[in-house]
Amino acid sequence: MAVGNNNRVDDFAGHDEEEGGMAHQNHATTTIVMPPLEIHKVCLPPKKTAFESMKHRLSEIFFPDDPFHKFKNQTFVKKLVLGLQYFFPIFQWAPTYTLALFKSDIVSGLTIASLAIPQGISYAKLANLPPIIGLYSSFVPPILYALLGSSKHLGVGPVSIASLVMGEMLRERVSNVTDPVLYLKLAFTATFFAGLFQASLGLLRLGFIIDFLSKATLTGFMAGAAIIVSLQQLKGLLGIAHFTNKMQIIPVLESVFSHMKEWSWETIVMGLSFLIFLLICRQVSIRRPNLFWVQAAAPLTSVIISTLVVFIFKSQVHHISTIGHLPKGLNPPSANMLYFSGPFLGLAIKTGITTGILALTEGIAVGRTFASLKNYQVDGNKEMVAIGVMNMAGSCTSCYITTGSFSRSAINVIAGAQTAVSNIVMASTVLVTLLFLMPLFNYTPNLILAAIIITAVIGLIDYQSVIKLWKVDKLDFVACLCAFFGVLFISVSTGLLIAVGVSIFKILMHVTRPNTVMLGNIPGTQIYQNVGRYGDASRVASFLILGIESPIYFANCTYLQERILRWVREEEERIQGKKENELKCIILDLTAVTAVDTSGLETLTELRRVLEKRSLQLVLVNPVGQVMQKLHRSKALVLFGSNGLYLTVGEAIADISSNIKVQLYMP
Amino acid sequence: MAVGNNNRVDDFAGHDEEEGGMAHQNHATTTIVMPPLEIHKVCLPPKKTAFESMKHRLSEIFFPDDPFHKFKNQTFVKKLVLGLQYFFPIFQWAPTYTLALFKSDIVSGLTIASLAIPQGISYAKLANLPPIIGLYSSFVPPILYALLGSSKHLGVGPVSIASLVMGEMLRERVSNVTDPVLYLKLAFTATFFAGLFQASLGLLRLGFIIDFLSKATLTGFMAGAAIIVSLQQLKGLLGIAHFTNKMQIIPVLESVFSHMKEWSWETIVMGLSFLIFLLICRQVSIRRPNLFWVQAAAPLTSVIISTLVVFIFKSQVHHISTIGHLPKGLNPPSANMLYFSGPFLGLAIKTGITTGILALTEGIAVGRTFASLKNYQVDGNKEMVAIGVMNMAGSCTSCYITTGSFSRSAINVIAGAQTAVSNIVMASTVLVTLLFLMPLFNYTPNLILAAIIITAVIGLIDYQSVIKLWKVDKLDFVACLCAFFGVLFISVSTGLLIAVGVSIFKILMHVTRPNTVMLGNIPGTQIYQNVGRYGDASRVASFLILGIESPIYFANCTYLQERILRWVREEEERIQGKKENELKCIILDLTAVTAVDTSGLETLTELRRVLEKRSLQLVLVNPVGQVMQKLHRSKALVLFGSNGLYLTVGEAIADISSNIKVQLYMP
Repeated sequence: MAVGNNNRVDDFAGHDEEEGGMAHQNHATTTIVMPPLEIHKVCLPPKKTAFESMKHRLSEIFFPDDPFHKFKNQTFVKKLVLGLQYFFPIFQWAPTYTLALFKSDIVSGLTIASLAIPQGISYAKLANLPPIIGLYSSFVPPILYALLGSSKHLGVGPVSIASLVMGEMLRERVSNVTDPVLYLKLAFTATFFAGLFQASLGLLRLGFIIDFLSKATLTGFMAGAAIIVSLQQLKGLLGIAHFTNKMQIIPVLESVFSHMKEWSWETIVMGLSFLIFLLICRQVSIRRPNLFWVQAAAPLTSVIISTLVVFIFKSQVHHISTIGHLPKGLNPPSANMLYFSGPFLGLAIKTGITTGILALTEGIAVGRTFASLKNYQVDGNKEMVAIGVMNMAGSCTSCYITTGSFSRSAINVIAGAQTAVSNIVMASTVLVTLLFLMPLFNYTPNLILAAIIITAVIGLIDYQSVIKLWKVDKLDFVACLCAFFGVLFISVSTGLLIAVGVSIFKILMHVTRPNTVMLGNIPGTQIYQNVGRYGDASRVASFLILGIESPIYFANCTYLQERILRWVREEEERIQGKKENELKCIILDLTAVTAVDTSGLETLTELRRVLEKRSLQLVLVNPVGQVMQKLHRSKALVLFGSNGLYLTVGEAIADISSNIKVQLYMP
Repeated sequence: MAVGNNNRVDDFAGHDEEEGGMAHQNHATTTIVMPPLEIHKVCLPPKKTAFESMKHRLSEIFFPDDPFHKFKNQTFVKKLVLGLQYFFPIFQWAPTYTLALFKSDIVSGLTIASLAIPQGISYAKLANLPPIIGLYSSFVPPILYALLGSSKHLGVGPVSIASLVMGEMLRERVSNVTDPVLYLKLAFTATFFAGLFQASLGLLRLGFIIDFLSKATLTGFMAGAAIIVSLQQLKGLLGIAHFTNKMQIIPVLESVFSHMKEWSWETIVMGLSFLIFLLICRQVSIRRPNLFWVQAAAPLTSVIISTLVVFIFKSQVHHISTIGHLPKGLNPPSANMLYFSGPFLGLAIKTGITTGILALTEGIAVGRTFASLKNYQVDGNKEMVAIGVMNMAGSCTSCYITTGSFSRSAINVIAGAQTAVSNIVMASTVLVTLLFLMPLFNYTPNLILAAIIITAVIGLIDYQSVIKLWKVDKLDFVACLCAFFGVLFISVSTGLLIAVGVSIFKILMHVTRPNTVMLGNIPGTQIYQNVGRYGDASRVASFLILGIESPIYFANCTYLQERILRWVREEEERIQGKKENELKCIILDLTAVTAVDTSGLETLTELRRVLEKRSLQLVLVNPVGQVMQKLHRSKALVLFGSNGLYLTVGEAIADISSNIKVQLYMP
């Protein structure tokens, strides 16, 4: 088809010297290969009732991954089995579990347990909770996750960011020193609500809500939180007794330097030695991944050595504060401590939702990362239910908020974990610790916990990502900085709010000020591209072809109207000087206009009206399905008429220019 | 070019029976017209430094309309004159002002004055302010607007929605009955901050912020507000003395029916008669626009007649409450009443910003509507400065918030207004009233104000738009309903918040769950379109061509990855049953992907990696400038390699299928 009509050549554009058979000579400036005479109709999408299209839309929103595709065309029994496997993934892999897998899981489980025990104690302190809560939280949730979770490599337990935020939000209103019971109650209640919120998000398939924390802002947020947490640990590392409760950088630094008299040199020397030891171990493992066990074993080793040192020299080092007595025994039930009415209920809910979102973000991101590394998929919504249920159950068994931790999962993977059984192994090790080894922590110095926390959170400062952000996307970089400084100078929760706000603002900004580009023909083809970008793309005389690169919405329709009129004005001014054919027709290429709303439709008809008054024709090209449907329903198509809508720019130009010619040659 | 190569026909797709010279036979199912052998390179946009691209971006955000284009290439004096004309549009039209124009302006000015006087008094009561404030507000602001505004037809003064919201927000915390002076102070202060906010928006060229109130939600909001206002007027119409201060529909209706003893039949009869009279006049003018003066004169006529009736029968109708004594004289200065410190400052600022936004939205929308009707343009940012300055000046001269009113502007236009002088004529008429006619209002009954307000706000219920919303866009319709019921059942300001929230949520929803469509070739062309929509578009064997209809963002990259993998899975399942060539290559058409961020880039490379493991090739087609730039900067292009990026789908298929063929025929 493209062959037969190429002898029709554009000659109204003032290039009469090149008439006839032109399409065979390439690269002449405004030569246009004529498209087939046959003009293709722009189709409406297949008709659907309001109910059908609503159903389709809702299924795209809530079931984009089509989780039920396995259930199609199956017998009832098979469906039942599949359903059980869907809700308890353990039934999926347990039947094929082998001794070889178990061996790998034992090794990795023991490895992460050696990390989980000191981390649990440390992170509980970060949330201003008794250290034992951290151990409890490393026992019940991992077992539940092993039953419910779809990731094979997630190492479950308390994490730094969620602990930090819970600690900060609760302490703003309730003191953990003067009112420890209330504080503990609120922590469990917040954990309960976090779990409830997480599970509901998963059940209601609203998982996309956590997508609104963009990676760029999270990078800034985590870096800021890491710095705040590290500075807070100076309390333990320097042995300061009177330290601020605040989380901003200025009061923390003030606290450090205004209490220099309290600095204890024994603590400093010992703390710094272990910190350096831990950091070196971390570096070793980063440089040589097969030495992963160095990093994994270092915290427990430090705890053991430092405890021994303090025990042996206890008379000389009485300055050094220690964890002290921890009760032996399993998690006590705590369902009776949940706080469902009273003045702090709002605080508990707010804290729960905030930490719940943060925990989910980390858990799901970690799960996805390692799943993609090992080439399987985790189901985001199912993960949310698993994490949510484990937190709700945790809140009734003296656990605070837990999720998949990046450091533990990474070591889990490197140590060769094959299934979620490694979590069960870890939990069993914690169980043994809880039952028999608690008195050993009596002499464990607090400084070692500070060193462990600093080593853990330092990995959250991802300066390489920040450099990449600066290189690739300046706006993402600014968003990252906003979150970072928000955390450092205002507060952790404000920093988080800023992070979300900036992320959403970025989307809105893009929607409000979309790109419009002028298109030109690439000689010898039917391709129309941005003239600013493709040097050989040339304008078509008498036409102004604009590509709109955004949905046309209430939020940008005023802008687009003004911008298009400005393009027209500039084009007319440009032509005035030169001896070119005057502008006849404006073609809007709607290929990238992915949606339109009622305001956008009005803008299009209004634009057509305004341009018509200036004797300019407005033509639309290639509206996508949704847009076409709305143009049709709003009767805008009637206004544009049969020669106001084309499938391709080429066809529009061919058809309209032949009409213009006819008008020119008419008497 | 498109000619020379058409003898190269796709034969790897298992349609060997139709080989050779095929392109000349149309509509064969999977025949593909081969594109020119020459493969076009995808260009990078021209290089810009970070500073240049930032400058370009900022100028697009803040100066999209290029307000300085008139200043280019002008002498200094000319620039000065243009600058003066820019800031005071009066200098633009005053030199060419003629007596003929003045005659038109006198007629229209007097017409809107007859509307403005009763409306001013009524709206002031809506804001719980003394009636005289409404008259003051119809004097100073219109004069200032005439100097600064760029619309020729805007009728300036108090408006119902802004009055209502100011009244509600202030009365929530301060009573106008027990503390009238504080209430008045807060009203002036809120007006001041509204003006400051409006002028700042204009000066900082942030006018697009008001675009976030979509027309759909505004329709719902205004209808809800109109109903609330009308019901509130039952107080005046029924003569109830003890009425609720609340604004929700339930307490208002309760108030009406629980005080049935207070209903006064004289008030009801008189009120209803005038209400019916006003509504009839309104209908007359709507049906026959040349009788516009009927609607314009009706309120003043009603005021005069009702005042006379009350004056004559004053002994019989002492039940009917009247406006009472109003002080004679010009606006007293009120700068000393502005309240810049104290516990209510926050309230004043909040009220100011909310009413400021509402006033701007109405003023600018009205200005734009009539400008487009009369074929000129108003500059949104300049209008904001004008409205802002007039409100700041107003707050110092006993005026409360004013803006362009729809009803007054419409009558202004129909009455033949030519320039902003009609506002000056109106202000002069108000001046005469203030100086000499105030005692006449002594006997004006409050019921007439209620009737005037009802008649005015009933026009805000735009049920035809609502029907159109339902037809064209169900989501817009839901947004409209949310705002409507929010206003009715919760509160006016909550309704407004809901309106903004729903508008933004709609944008985010669209961004989070974008469309992906499968493309097919329209036989005999190089056009690739949605196979679900274009019946004759046919899939190309071995290829899966997907069109992504949205930017790829942090907010949708997880979804897109899952959705694309689902497309692949479904395509593979489809092919399994039939005897077709197996899937080799997935082509992503990025034409409609208008932006990408760092998360999106990661998704693309991740997708390439995942598909490669399944021996599927991923190819990108036609990324727009920004996307190409970021692909380049992030080194993603290196991963995709030289044959991972094409300018058109056709070229990609031609090139890749020839490669596949080579692989197939290799030993």
